[in-house]
Amino acid sequence: MFSKKLIQLNIIQLTKNSCRGFKNIPDFTKNTYQVERGFYNYLQEHHLKFFEDLLGDGERVLTNLSDLEKYNVDWYLQARGLSTVVLKPKTTQEVSLILDYCNSNKLALCIQGGNTGCSAGGVPVFDEIVLSTELMNEILEIDEHAGIILCQAGVVLETLDSALAEKGLMVPLDLGSKGSCQIGGNIATNAGGMRLLRYGNMHGNVLGLETVKANGEVLDCLKTMRKDNSGLHIKNIFIGSEGTLGVITKVALHCPPRPKSNHVAFLGLQSYDKVLKTLKKARGELGEILSAIEVMDAITMDWGEEHIKFKSPLDKYPYYLLIETSGSNEEHDTLKINSFLESALFGNYILNGIVAAEPSKIQSIWAIREKLPEGFKDHGWVGLYDLSLPVTEFYTLVDETRAYLKNRVEAVFGFGHLGDGNIHLNVMAKKYDKRLDKDLENFLTKRVLHLRGSMSAEHGLGFLKRKYLPMANSPGSYHLMTELKRLLDPNRILNPYKLFP
Amino acid sequence: MFSKKLIQLNIIQLTKNSCRGFKNIPDFTKNTYQVERGFYNYLQEHHLKFFEDLLGDGERVLTNLSDLEKYNVDWYLQARGLSTVVLKPKTTQEVSLILDYCNSNKLALCIQGGNTGCSAGGVPVFDEIVLSTELMNEILEIDEHAGIILCQAGVVLETLDSALAEKGLMVPLDLGSKGSCQIGGNIATNAGGMRLLRYGNMHGNVLGLETVKANGEVLDCLKTMRKDNSGLHIKNIFIGSEGTLGVITKVALHCPPRPKSNHVAFLGLQSYDKVLKTLKKARGELGEILSAIEVMDAITMDWGEEHIKFKSPLDKYPYYLLIETSGSNEEHDTLKINSFLESALFGNYILNGIVAAEPSKIQSIWAIREKLPEGFKDHGWVGLYDLSLPVTEFYTLVDETRAYLKNRVEAVFGFGHLGDGNIHLNVMAKKYDKRLDKDLENFLTKRVLHLRGSMSAEHGLGFLKRKYLPMANSPGSYHLMTELKRLLDPNRILNPYKLFP
Repeated sequence: MFSKKLIQLNIIQLTKNSCRGFKNIPDFTKNTYQVERGFYNYLQEHHLKFFEDLLGDGERVLTNLSDLEKYNVDWYLQARGLSTVVLKPKTTQEVSLILDYCNSNKLALCIQGGNTGCSAGGVPVFDEIVLSTELMNEILEIDEHAGIILCQAGVVLETLDSALAEKGLMVPLDLGSKGSCQIGGNIATNAGGMRLLRYGNMHGNVLGLETVKANGEVLDCLKTMRKDNSGLHIKNIFIGSEGTLGVITKVALHCPPRPKSNHVAFLGLQSYDKVLKTLKKARGELGEILSAIEVMDAITMDWGEEHIKFKSPLDKYPYYLLIETSGSNEEHDTLKINSFLESALFGNYILNGIVAAEPSKIQSIWAIREKLPEGFKDHGWVGLYDLSLPVTEFYTLVDETRAYLKNRVEAVFGFGHLGDGNIHLNVMAKKYDKRLDKDLENFLTKRVLHLRGSMSAEHGLGFLKRKYLPMANSPGSYHLMTELKRLLDPNRILNPYKLFP
Repeated sequence: MFSKKLIQLNIIQLTKNSCRGFKNIPDFTKNTYQVERGFYNYLQEHHLKFFEDLLGDGERVLTNLSDLEKYNVDWYLQARGLSTVVLKPKTTQEVSLILDYCNSNKLALCIQGGNTGCSAGGVPVFDEIVLSTELMNEILEIDEHAGIILCQAGVVLETLDSALAEKGLMVPLDLGSKGSCQIGGNIATNAGGMRLLRYGNMHGNVLGLETVKANGEVLDCLKTMRKDNSGLHIKNIFIGSEGTLGVITKVALHCPPRPKSNHVAFLGLQSYDKVLKTLKKARGELGEILSAIEVMDAITMDWGEEHIKFKSPLDKYPYYLLIETSGSNEEHDTLKINSFLESALFGNYILNGIVAAEPSKIQSIWAIREKLPEGFKDHGWVGLYDLSLPVTEFYTLVDETRAYLKNRVEAVFGFGHLGDGNIHLNVMAKKYDKRLDKDLENFLTKRVLHLRGSMSAEHGLGFLKRKYLPMANSPGSYHLMTELKRLLDPNRILNPYKLFP
């Protein structure tokens, strides 16, 4: 158990020491960004005693500095909190008791899933108590017949998918972070990923949720039917709410049949105009077996080959497309993709292209796309912009950004989910520069809002993009958001400094 | 313009006269069902003057008895309201002014789309002012590239689909009532229909909404991107809210590519066990081209052949399946469906089956399924139960219901969307019988809730099923629904007596 003095000491140490175990460890969020601590209580000895009585003082209440590091720093090394305690409930009941207690004692909480978010929404900003869902990882039921899985919120996406694979099913989303991210976090952030164009978004796939409100009340909307219109659709409020309205504890998800046949084509193209023409052609000819269309430009590919050491299967081209198909009939799918590739080549849509059908080859092509985010974070500061735009404007904006920033940065990367109109525009600089960050933000905001796009397509607002809430939404809908927050978390103990500015 | 006296006279006449233009015209809702009028103001001369000043006193403010009939009676002839005025705004601004005025004057409104609902949610119960969206029927924009349509809420589903067809796109839902129902009503009721199994639900397909709150405030959530996580997902609150939280005025919808190849198989089967085995087989072999699986039993088919005069393309069998495929490659799809049919026949899954590829033949098979609802309503009283159930329990419940009701009814029909676990269990009697209705309801409720099913899969609660709101939802989520209602419509002027008991 901790004395009051010791807890204060921890905070001081955290403030002075650099965080161990990370390269390029960021400075504390409170130093880097303009943000003021809310009027929450500080953690005291009797609070800790309550948590230890509830969860035991062993592995489920972490207070050692070395244990806390990975919960305080976000995956992209953009933010660093000062939390001195991590709680790891296993059950809904425990979450409920923790929230009730924190609400009564005005203690702020940061809800953390796999800590793979890109907007620093899952790490504390100041000393919020971290509530980690990592031990809530039980798969409760798989209904093979209906294609429905029921599980706790902390199940890792890849684990969920493996369990479903045994039944001939799959999770309807795929993310580069699948080995770490949790289904609860995916739902709380309305995660998109590579296959949204085929399987749709979380609102379409989540059938039911169990959540815990800030006051500890368990909200049971855990229905397991594909169709249910027996009331307002309460569960949808929590999808994409980024932990600000409640803690997701259980999930019922619709899971489609696992495809029997997969192909990935990797194409080299002359211009972005050809990219758009090929997109249209792929949609028409590959139709219902199309499951992903990713785009990348030469600057991004060249940087990746040099720094991440992945190997493009093609020579150098101005643009690259990765096209995935998933279907039920190997022979038909092979015919479709080969005929598509052939006519794309002879019709001068593409300059070169290969198709992979073997799992290992498919995986090595996907690796090019999936390794990018990880590669970036080991090379200085990365400004992440996750934009929805009309596809025709994708690379116009990337080029404009390059022209605007010139030598102020190392590189500007443009890649993303072409099929969904979602580009990742990442800017790499030697180190964080407040002025650069601000200029870039102003530049992009103006352009994107003018094009009726979104400043956060799939990453959410989290901490880093929270200022966009009033900018990106009409005054009326912004006001309604604040009213929902007041209704569900009147003391604002859930994920403060996130989503709401 | 009307005098106060004249308006009262209208009410009296309506009460005494039978409604013209309908066979089997139902008695007034207030006589048939136990329901008390809320403390709303009665329509007065100066109210009408306001509406006529706003909309003109011609075709957009209806007060003639003969004009009012079709707005007062629901499509299934289950309910009949006493409204004396129908308003037909054309613009969001007009809806806003009407709502603001009604809210200030405590006048209740009934929001009506195509009036094709099955739970009497779209017709007035007492004298609510009918706000019809039928003149809000403009298609504003089609983004061919991204597959997105922007339109007013009153566009008829079939009209929308025809406009999309010209661009190689389609609406992602199909309903028997597509010739009359409106997209706004489809969204307000989270309509399901025949192709949900392929294209998902409204939450997955609606990209943006413009709605008007009870106080007249226009809520602009009309985004047109497939991915947007720049705030709480406010629009989803209105999907399935059945007009109780706001009036949907504009819609942005994701529209998938229109398939180039369609097939419909019609199969005769020996037992429900074989139906389930064939369902699994179809899912596995038809995979991504499967777009509908409908089931029907012999009693339903025989009744339809006798009374609706449709003609089954097969001899008589205990069960029938209608399986539709939609794909991008005619040759591949033909091979898939033929090979499926062949192996289903030789493997003793089915007793007989045919496949249609010509549009006219496809349409005549679909007509069997689509004409059923229309046929029922001309033959006495029909109790409609729209249930979500584990598919294994579908016909157990139909048989149990037949055994329970015995000779008290004309027939019990079981048919529906097998692929989504959604059965329509319809009971036909010579006339409405309060005791029968109650017994049936108690019987089904007990069974369905025990099986963790839903008492309203796709029809919504409307007026007829509103009692299920507290039964079908946990106390916490029911409470939150009432809080949302209070937040958005504190005077409860929007669709009173609907959804909320």
